[in-house]
Amino acid sequence: MDNNARVSTFHYPHPFPLERGGELPSLSITYHTYGKLNPERNNCIWVCHALTANSDAADWWPNTVVADGFLDPNRYFIVCANILGSCYGSTGPLSINPATGEPWYDSFPKMTIRDIVNAHILLADHLQLSSIFSLIGSSVGGFQAVEWAIMQPERFRSLVLIATSVYASPWAIAIDETQRMAIFADKSFGEKRPDAAQAGLAAARAIGLLTYRGERGYNITQQDNPSDDNKVPDYHRACSYQRHQGDKLIKRFDAYSYVTILDTFDTHNIGRGRGGIKAALAMINCPTLCVGITTDMIFPPDEIKEFSLSIPHAYYKEISSQFGHDGFLVENDLLNSIIKDFFSTAVKTENKKS
Amino acid sequence: MDNNARVSTFHYPHPFPLERGGELPSLSITYHTYGKLNPERNNCIWVCHALTANSDAADWWPNTVVADGFLDPNRYFIVCANILGSCYGSTGPLSINPATGEPWYDSFPKMTIRDIVNAHILLADHLQLSSIFSLIGSSVGGFQAVEWAIMQPERFRSLVLIATSVYASPWAIAIDETQRMAIFADKSFGEKRPDAAQAGLAAARAIGLLTYRGERGYNITQQDNPSDDNKVPDYHRACSYQRHQGDKLIKRFDAYSYVTILDTFDTHNIGRGRGGIKAALAMINCPTLCVGITTDMIFPPDEIKEFSLSIPHAYYKEISSQFGHDGFLVENDLLNSIIKDFFSTAVKTENKKS
Repeated sequence: MDNNARVSTFHYPHPFPLERGGELPSLSITYHTYGKLNPERNNCIWVCHALTANSDAADWWPNTVVADGFLDPNRYFIVCANILGSCYGSTGPLSINPATGEPWYDSFPKMTIRDIVNAHILLADHLQLSSIFSLIGSSVGGFQAVEWAIMQPERFRSLVLIATSVYASPWAIAIDETQRMAIFADKSFGEKRPDAAQAGLAAARAIGLLTYRGERGYNITQQDNPSDDNKVPDYHRACSYQRHQGDKLIKRFDAYSYVTILDTFDTHNIGRGRGGIKAALAMINCPTLCVGITTDMIFPPDEIKEFSLSIPHAYYKEISSQFGHDGFLVENDLLNSIIKDFFSTAVKTENKKS
Repeated sequence: MDNNARVSTFHYPHPFPLERGGELPSLSITYHTYGKLNPERNNCIWVCHALTANSDAADWWPNTVVADGFLDPNRYFIVCANILGSCYGSTGPLSINPATGEPWYDSFPKMTIRDIVNAHILLADHLQLSSIFSLIGSSVGGFQAVEWAIMQPERFRSLVLIATSVYASPWAIAIDETQRMAIFADKSFGEKRPDAAQAGLAAARAIGLLTYRGERGYNITQQDNPSDDNKVPDYHRACSYQRHQGDKLIKRFDAYSYVTILDTFDTHNIGRGRGGIKAALAMINCPTLCVGITTDMIFPPDEIKEFSLSIPHAYYKEISSQFGHDGFLVENDLLNSIIKDFFSTAVKTENKKS
């Protein structure tokens, strides 16, 4: 099927102030769209992507941007923008700092999830999307989605939060800090080149993978060959897997963008300046689907269920999966079913009510 | 109470062959004892220590080597030996290689858990301990204990395996490989000095801690101060904790010993050369207590319960703890109660039977 994919870059030629102080002199935001915007301009589903993904949702979220998927491009106009601080076409550490004529590298300013959302808002305004059918985010994408639904509650007719949270827990922050420690242990971090600290970045990715997949994920897929059982093995499939995943990431990502996005993760807290998390959640006024994954060790389902109780029109669903946090990328049949059901019942019903 | 602690070093002046090939030209084994050996020489409890611990069990296992603890030095003669490959007095990478007159560093030969146990056997023979009342190990200490109980089933009158396993699972191996990736990302690994790759070692320790403590451990103890809720925080307690734990380890341990012991972990498999794990477990002929910890993410209780079913005289107990794998170091009241109960009922009963 032709999903009508288009990729564009929006340039915003004005200073962009940042929550932690300072500003970026201008912005570029690269985004994909799939399907067609209807004449009423109200059939958009906006997808917020996670840590190292990009704007090509059809690529990193298989079997979703398809006919009959929850991102069906025959029905919806799907938008996904590369986040600020990343390296897939939006302004980030590898972009040129006009003050020096060189890339920012480790001098790129520290940002927050709210900065990333403010960039999304510029793009949504540019695209004249004042009534978005649904805003969807998983993991760090969910951080953006829940922030945005609080910042502009009138813009969205529904919200889907998958394997995510309303603040960075000490546990999640500890995971991030450990990844930074691995990157900074590679003393080439700070060198003015895009491939600095690649060994550290590979180790950080391997740390991330442990937390994305978890015990069952590894024990199901990475068992060693039992035929080697009578000699001391020189090779373990699990070792090879960790190194391979590290190698894959360093071919497509850089340590500076990675650290920039990890930093935004750690300061995620929807309660900041809003009287706390519960008060912030009470500001969400559209039907909201919250999805937990049974084996997710970063965002345990209990944490998601708990915050869903403070959202006025929330539905909580749990996906049973062996693949941990990565279940959100893998269990697409279940997601298609759960989200389409939410769209066809809760969203329509709530919209009729209002 | 005076626990009669003594520390000694046993020197074995002969070549010591290694399971993966090659040999060490000689061995030193540093060990602690507590309490007194009875005239029948049969009141010994042998404790096997974990990854970065040492022979001073009374220090790293608080409230156990005490009157009325399961390691009561008034009743028992406790022995704990620093494992081969470590840096607390037994032969390891910082020992002098007599062939070069310099420390081994990264040229130290690769070892297995069976090599570590063979060194314990030399020491136990030297101490004339032919009937050991109990052999106890937690984590990598349990790897040694279960191996030894299979290698010399007649030597032990009971066995206690806590938060451990009978083989290194793909998940556990992936955790180790990730730690090695962090250490090797520090390019000073390989330099001929004891403090090489300290930043990498600190990151590896931080990875380990994630898996020792788990989500609840961090979320209970490392919450940020809520009074900072209205500004973007520059500080997170969880970050400080990770760095602090890394800094603590590099003051007392070295990257070469750490990697050496990680490598022994990965090849742990009691089934090797014995017709598989079940056949090996069937060779254990003393009463055996297996203890799982509810929140242990490295050795999930289900894994421990499952292997306990293949041990002829096994008892399985589960400790409910919020502290993950580290529960074995923390939940000493529970351990004292469970293990003393095992000693006073199962061990005596089984000994009467025989």
